[in-house]
This record gives sequence, C-alpha cells and structure tokens, in this order.
Amino acid sequence: MDSAFAIPGDLVSSGMSFSQNEPLPKAKDMTHHLNTISRNRTTSSLKQLYKYMTTPGMITLGGGIPSPEYFPFESISATVQAPDTLPLNPPRRPAKKSMLSWIFGPKTSSFTIPKYVQNADARTIQLATSLQYQQATGPPALPLFLREYVAKVYQPAYADWDVLINCGATDAWSKICFMLLEMGDAVLVEEWTYPGAENTMLPLETELVPIKMDGQGLLPDHLEQVLGGWNEEERGKRQPRVLYTVPTGQNPTGATMMGERKKQIYDICCKYDVIICEDEPYFCLYTGEWKPESQSRASAKHDETLEGPKGADAFIKALPPTYLRYDTEGRVIRMDTFSKTSCPGSRLGWFTSSPLFIERLTRATEASTQAPSGFVTAMTSTLVTKWGFDGYIRWLRGIKATYNMRKTWLCDAFEDVFHLEFDDSLDKNNVMVRDIFGGMSRGVTCYAKAPSSRTATIREKQVSALKTKTPLVSFIPPSAGMFVFLAVHFDEHPDYKSLRSQGENAVRVLSERLWIDLAENLVLFAPGWTFDANGPHAIGGDGYGYYRLSFSIATYEQMHEAVEKFAKVLTKFFKV
Amino acid sequence: MDSAFAIPGDLVSSGMSFSQNEPLPKAKDMTHHLNTISRNRTTSSLKQLYKYMTTPGMITLGGGIPSPEYFPFESISATVQAPDTLPLNPPRRPAKKSMLSWIFGPKTSSFTIPKYVQNADARTIQLATSLQYQQATGPPALPLFLREYVAKVYQPAYADWDVLINCGATDAWSKICFMLLEMGDAVLVEEWTYPGAENTMLPLETELVPIKMDGQGLLPDHLEQVLGGWNEEERGKRQPRVLYTVPTGQNPTGATMMGERKKQIYDICCKYDVIICEDEPYFCLYTGEWKPESQSRASAKHDETLEGPKGADAFIKALPPTYLRYDTEGRVIRMDTFSKTSCPGSRLGWFTSSPLFIERLTRATEASTQAPSGFVTAMTSTLVTKWGFDGYIRWLRGIKATYNMRKTWLCDAFEDVFHLEFDDSLDKNNVMVRDIFGGMSRGVTCYAKAPSSRTATIREKQVSALKTKTPLVSFIPPSAGMFVFLAVHFDEHPDYKSLRSQGENAVRVLSERLWIDLAENLVLFAPGWTFDANGPHAIGGDGYGYYRLSFSIATYEQMHEAVEKFAKVLTKFFKV
Repeated sequence: MDSAFAIPGDLVSSGMSFSQNEPLPKAKDMTHHLNTISRNRTTSSLKQLYKYMTTPGMITLGGGIPSPEYFPFESISATVQAPDTLPLNPPRRPAKKSMLSWIFGPKTSSFTIPKYVQNADARTIQLATSLQYQQATGPPALPLFLREYVAKVYQPAYADWDVLINCGATDAWSKICFMLLEMGDAVLVEEWTYPGAENTMLPLETELVPIKMDGQGLLPDHLEQVLGGWNEEERGKRQPRVLYTVPTGQNPTGATMMGERKKQIYDICCKYDVIICEDEPYFCLYTGEWKPESQSRASAKHDETLEGPKGADAFIKALPPTYLRYDTEGRVIRMDTFSKTSCPGSRLGWFTSSPLFIERLTRATEASTQAPSGFVTAMTSTLVTKWGFDGYIRWLRGIKATYNMRKTWLCDAFEDVFHLEFDDSLDKNNVMVRDIFGGMSRGVTCYAKAPSSRTATIREKQVSALKTKTPLVSFIPPSAGMFVFLAVHFDEHPDYKSLRSQGENAVRVLSERLWIDLAENLVLFAPGWTFDANGPHAIGGDGYGYYRLSFSIATYEQMHEAVEKFAKVLTKFFKV
Repeated sequence: MDSAFAIPGDLVSSGMSFSQNEPLPKAKDMTHHLNTISRNRTTSSLKQLYKYMTTPGMITLGGGIPSPEYFPFESISATVQAPDTLPLNPPRRPAKKSMLSWIFGPKTSSFTIPKYVQNADARTIQLATSLQYQQATGPPALPLFLREYVAKVYQPAYADWDVLINCGATDAWSKICFMLLEMGDAVLVEEWTYPGAENTMLPLETELVPIKMDGQGLLPDHLEQVLGGWNEEERGKRQPRVLYTVPTGQNPTGATMMGERKKQIYDICCKYDVIICEDEPYFCLYTGEWKPESQSRASAKHDETLEGPKGADAFIKALPPTYLRYDTEGRVIRMDTFSKTSCPGSRLGWFTSSPLFIERLTRATEASTQAPSGFVTAMTSTLVTKWGFDGYIRWLRGIKATYNMRKTWLCDAFEDVFHLEFDDSLDKNNVMVRDIFGGMSRGVTCYAKAPSSRTATIREKQVSALKTKTPLVSFIPPSAGMFVFLAVHFDEHPDYKSLRSQGENAVRVLSERLWIDLAENLVLFAPGWTFDANGPHAIGGDGYGYYRLSFSIATYEQMHEAVEKFAKVLTKFFKV
C-alpha cells in the first residue's frame, strides 16, 4: 500500500517523447476547467524523497516495499498470435477451415517475463519491477510505445502533449468527470449516446445536453445554436464546458465523423471554450461503407489489403483524422483502450492530452487506482515491444479487416432475408425519400419479400412487385465499429394509431413488445431506448423505434439465423 | 467498453457464500451514511437484459463484445513458488545459501491458463472469459475463495456480509471516500497516519480529526471525548461518521490493537454511529514483539513454527481478532490487499462489508474501474485455487516468519551498534520513566557506546558505565508490519534551546537537518513529519522527532550498515 518509494517519475519520460516538433504551439492554459476536487489535489508529501532514490549506493529503509524474493510469481509467460495472423482480405463468406488450421490453430510465438533480468534498466520488463509498486505512469516501456503510436498515427497539432495509462475507458471517463465536473454541471452529448458513459456522470447530477446528429455524428449548427443560445440565468447553470463524443463507429448509431466536420466542431468548441473528450474504442475499426454483393467488386484489391509498408501507410491514411489533429490549444482529452485491439479484460487504456490534464490525472491516479496491474502492463508492454510499431499496425489491420468481414455477414443476411431498397431517391425538394437518418450516407429500407420471391434470383429481387408494401425496417450501411442501428417503422403497425389515441407512447410500447417477442424467440438485440439521451432527435423521431445489433461476436450462421428469426417475428408482429 | 452483456451477477455468488450462520444477526440499515454521489448511482439501464443472457440457445447481437478468437493471447502461464517455500522458523541471522539453492532457487511449479477450457462453467478460469468483459465482481472463483478465507480467518459477527474485489487498497479507500464523504466532512484518524490515505481524502476538503494513540493504537477515552464533545454548531460541521484506521502494524508507528481494545472502540463507534474503515495490509505480518538475543529463547519451538494443521490453527489463533469479529451491525468496511501477501503490482484487494455497502461499491466499480484486469484475477484465482485454503495459509505463515526474521535483523543491529536500555523502570507514581510512547509495550532507548565498550561482551554492555550519558533515540520493539518508528531526542541537542528561543520549530529544523545528513551519507529513512496528522500527540510531542524505518526490503548487511552509519551521523550531529 505504501508506494511512496516507487520508481521516480523522471525516469519514466526521460527522452522518450516523440512530440518535440518545435514549430507546433504549446497547449494553452486550461486551469480554469479543473473542478474543486482536482484543484485540491497535491503531490505526495514524500515526493521530496524521490531525488535521493536513484543515488548510487543509497540504502533505503524508507519505503514499505516488499522484497521481490517473496513474490510467489517467479516468471509469467504468454503464447500470442503472430501480428499477421488475421487476413487483410478475407472472403465475403467464412471459408471452410482446413483440417490443418483446426489442428495447428493460428500462428503463435511465446515469451517469458522472468523475475530478474541481468543489467535491467528502467525500461526493462521484469517481475521484480512490474509486480512491485510502480509510478502511476506504469512501466516506462509502455508510454514510450504509446508516444510513438500517437505521434505517428494521431499527429497532434501542438507540441507538449503526453500520454497516461489508465484502467480502461470507463476508468478514464470517470477520472475525467471527477477532474472537470462540478455537481449539476451540464455536459454536451450525442442525441444517441453510450449508457455506460451516462452511468459514470449522472451520479454527479449532470444535465445531459443532447446535440442532434446525422451520418457523421454531431451537427455543428445545432451545437452552435445550443452554446450560443445558452442563458446561464434561465438555465440556472453555467454553459456546458465538456463535450463527450464517440466520433468513430459511434455507439449506438455507427456514425463516423470525418476531418472537415471535426474541424467545424473543434472551432465551435474553441469559440465557447469547451473541452472535447473523444472516446475512441472503435477508431481502428473504420472499415468503409457496406455495399451489397451485387454492387461491390469483391475481387478488387486496393492498397489497404496489401502486405507491407504500402499497405500500412494506406491503413493510416484511411483512418479518420482525430480531434487531436486539429487541437492547437490542448483542449482535447482523447481516450484510447486496448479492449477492442487486444482484449477487454486487460482493463488497460490511455489518455492523450495536455501537460496540465495529464499531470492532474496522474495525481488522481496516485490517489485511487495507481498504475494498472503489473500483470497486464508487463504482458501488454512485452507484446507491443515484441511486435514493434509495424507489427502492431499489421495486427490492427487484421482486426479491421475482420470486423469489416463480420459487418458484411450481418448486412448480407439482411439482403438475403428481406427485400432491400436504398433511400437514394430524391423528392421534388431534392430531399431524400424516407431520409430517417438525417442524410446519414444511404439508408436501406427492408420489406418482407412477397411469398413468390423467396426463391427469386437477385435480379428478380430488384423488381418491387416482389416486395410486400409495408416498409418494416431501415438501417445505415455501417462504415465502422461493431454496430448496426436498426430503425423499425412502428408507425406502420396496425395498433400504432389506436395506442397514440389512448395517449400511450406508441413507439415505446411497441418497441418493448417486439423486443420481448424477439427474446422469447431466442434473439437478443440491444433496445434503442437505453441509448436515448432524450434530445430533440434528428435521427429518427416520431414513428421509429430503434435496436442496436452487434456483429462483433456472433458466428456467420448465428447472424443469419438471427436475421431470419427477426424477419419472421417482425412480419408476424406487423401482421404483414 | 460496452460491458452490458458480461456474465450475469447472480452466477457470481450463487451458493458460494460461507456466511449463512443462521444464529448471527443481519446487518443494520446504514443507508443514511451514503453520500449524495453514492445515493445517485443507479443500476445499468441494460440490467433488464441479463435475465435473458443465460437462456440456452439465445443468439445475442446485444453486446459490443469482441470475439475471443481475436484476443492476441492464446494462453498465459506462470511459474510459482510452492506454498511451503519460506521456512517457518528461519535462523536469527541469514544462513549462507548452499550452492544448491543458488543453482535451483526456490521450489516451484507451473500452471497454464488456455483460451478455452472444455466443459467450462462460470467458475472456470479461461482466457475466453478472463480477458473478456466481466462483471465488476470479477471471476466467480475469486470471491468464492475469499468468502472461505474471510469466514474461517475473520469470522464476522453478522450473517449477510459479502466481499467485493478492487484494484488494491488505495482504490478501495478512494471508493469508500466517494461513497461516504461529503465535501468538508470530518474524518477520525490516528494521530500518526498514512499520507497515502490523506492524499485520497483531502481533495474532498476533509478535516482530519486525530485521535491519540498508545502501543495498541487508538485510545478509547480520547475517541469518546472527541465524539461526545463534538459541537456541530461550534465546529460548523457534522460529527465525524467515518474512522480510518490501520489496526495491525500501524503505519508508521507499528502499533497493533488486540481484541479487547477493538471491542471498546467498536462500542464507541456504535454509540456515535461511526463507520469503521479498517485498512489491513500488514494483518498477516503480526509477529509478536522483538526480544534481544540475550533475552529470547531462539531454540524454543512453539506451535506456530510447526508444519501441518496444528501450526495453521496456532497461526490463525495468534492473529489479532479483526473489527469484523465484533461487528454485529455491519458498520465495518474492511480493506484487504494482495500487495504484501502476493505482490504490490497485482493492484488487487477486496472489501468485506454489509450487503448495502458492497452493492453501492459494486455500482461505483461498474462506473469506474470495472473488475480488476483479467490478467491479475486469472493469475491470482488460479494460484489460490491451486494452493487451496491450507496452502495459502502455509504461504502466509512463511511470509509472517520472514518478516519476523527481517524485523529481528534491524532490531539486532541497533542492539549491536548502540547501548540499549529498556524503558521499564517506574517512577514513584508508577509511570514509566521516559515513557514517550504512551505505555507502548516497552520502549527501548539507545545511547552511543562509550569508546571502551565497543569490544565489550553482552554482559558488560548492561553496565551503564559503558554508555555515554545522552539518550539519543528511542523506539518500540515492533510486533507487526514492516516498520520501526524511531524517536530521536532532539531536546538533547546542543542547539535545541537556542533554536526555540529564536522562535524556531526546533524539532522540525533538527529533524530535517539530520535527515539530510543521513541521506548524504547514503541512508534514507522516511521522515516522521510526513505521517503527522497534526493532532495533540500522546506519542512523542515536544522534544522528539520521528523517522520510520522499514525492514521489508533491505538485506541483513544493508540494515546493519545503515544502523552503523546512523549511529555515526547521530553522534556527530549531537556532538556526543
């Protein structure tokens, strides 16, 4: 418990920063954003001793530090997949695994972390230090790697940014809330947002201020309107100073924001002095939009699917620019996690932000979680050091290709089971017909197939005579993340009008009924109402009920079966 | 990040509780102790889905859960020491290691945790679940083991207690503070207390209310006096509702509280409705008081040093009863950690408390750290399951014997280097002479040896003619933990009076001077002033300055050298 005498902090970042691009500006002072608790945090009263800790020959009886001799763990080992295990261009449908792959499984290699390494320096991973008390900043090898990754992939627009590891994105967001929010503050969120993030901020009696979205997420006009129109007297609270956003593969809508839009949002946040907290678990899962097989050239090989540096560059270029890329003032706090790129059980992630916020978050970390467990930091540091930057990028590319494949499985199942129509026909005012997603790329609307069409060919399916007349479901062909966000047209339901005339929330009533019907037919979706930040909706609104479908874990067969069952339950539910 | 669909909570504790002793009372309602933030916490809005999660055949597209196939870790392994590696009765001085022990090291065995285990149930440790999102309660195998340990070793006095794992004692104390404390609350602490705990609570503008101590820690009379005399109007704040205490091997004094005293403190806390937070990192390091070699019967074997069940029972009986043993109301929150019994880098510990507090702490955990990293919970669960309860107890006994040996090394070095006198002579009022530790067992006072005595025999050393006349240092022969708390008699220093006459804080000035002298002579102690809760001191007070010496990590040679250097610097400093 007494970690006063762990490795001195100055060892941690010595000469490891990749962020010294002199022409770049330094972060502006954001001290006024710190809440009372964060301002009250002081450095450890034992800090003064650190400078003596590294004096050669020093005998320290200072710290309550157990001898590594008495750690029961003499060594830990891991067998890990090779960074190029996952294919960059997998088949559209799962290939039958060859006998060999069943017998041998993925390409793997092993490493062992001993208790003691000869001639270890501060960057050496050994159990004697990893399983000992550590600085809140963790083993130096890890921030070293992360700074290289941030510098090369995110390219922040100011000079003195840094990173700090944490216990995963939920811990990260909690530490940010307790650094920036006073009780009762208002926080800007997307109109559909992640309930886990709400659970963390709502105990602080936070007022959620939902901002309308379209296919790229937050709408700059509405953000400007909310901030510009904020009347502190009327609202009885100060203008929101914090924006919580998931810019890539947004949870639950799947919306992904590209660079131009980010620049617009960033400029508005500068104008109104708002801190941007970008939570990016799905960042590396930006895959590009789903296209039905009939319209996609599956055979076409583009750079991203090539092995080697050219493919790696194409991958990095294809990623949406992050808010950091536009952050000249140091008002972005980025949250990254290893949950989707390594494993969720790691409970390991990192902040990228200005020296002020990193320092305050470090003080908060010292007084709460301390560094994440040495077991996960030792394992993860060794893995990424062994792979190196290029190996890690190759691994990320495999993960991205895999999620793209899974996304295709789910969307193809819809194409297979329903009659699809793309919402690209414009009415006389040049507005998309059935544009329920606010111009979110091209929506797709699903109809039950007319009985005779069940055996029809793809060409025949195009013929609208082969669909039933009721539009049942619409969704966005997802371009990132893990989710498809389904909009069910409950306004087409026979009971819709009568429920409304009885003063019921017809959509909510029908959404819950359908959701239970599905569960009882052994298909579980995430109900949209749990993601509703209760804003004025640009996405959807009257008449539509939502469900979030994840393509991250179910097999090809399960996804297909789930969509078939969904169609069956749905047509019965709508009495089509 | 989206853990909504992890293992349902009801699997975690199903039929695993050891706490159903029907005659015992149930915890009283302590809801009024929760702070605003804790009362505001709600269960996850996705909880309603859990009941469907375990339905056989359910296809879930609900959760943003990655497929374990894409975890880079295929298996993890560890080589661990045998539970009986550490001797129960080590020699007083380190034995020369035999060549064999250098070659072979400690007795070890290995285990491997694969990604998938055939026919796994909820208690199986496999990477597919350990590295996946988990309930905040962690892998069921761990609470199962901890409940057995708590039931058998701590024996709580009420029926419906439970455990919850956390990221170590600092995280535990932080979660407790943010559950119980409002801004500006007063908290009861020992007059000498752990600065790490202060760092966690002071940002909440907590007022520390120091309670006087003696050799057993908190003084009931002073606690009663402070609580009984609390005037909310005068103080401008409500009576303290929280007590933070380290009952065993207290940090920094080394004080250990036995059962009778705990009962007295507990009763006062019931009377004034105070929640007792017992932080017990050193609990298993209760070793009994140091005795100089001349007075101890090193050869005498008592039950505790015997192998087998008899020795295990003696070990458990010899441990001080915990506050839980007296807790009939559920007003104790106990913090345990694996930092001293396994390794600090685990960042793994657990709460033992009432259903109310465990439930609120679980909600707080879901919204911040979530379960500790699956790497540490998988490794630790497998280790303790492999060892079993008896094996784990044997390991703890070895750890205890080892710290007892190290404690002896340090104290013996003082006996070797200084002329010691035990503060057991009573004056005419039956008060101990030089009782600077408030009757804390028997204090020992150290004098520089007279030159001629450097070569004298033990018998001769008893003759006071062979000591210099100035008492330099006193300490308590420690009976637990990792620390010796040294009191230096600065009132004997030639500059003491003149400094005071200049209005200086003479003790502080001299303490810092001596501390720097020591550091420059390559000996580092923890300065006592960093542990001072600034109370009215029963321990020490005018004229004494304190240093905390740890015997947890330095070698026998280092400890001896440190004490020799200390004596040299000290005699020079006092111009003896």
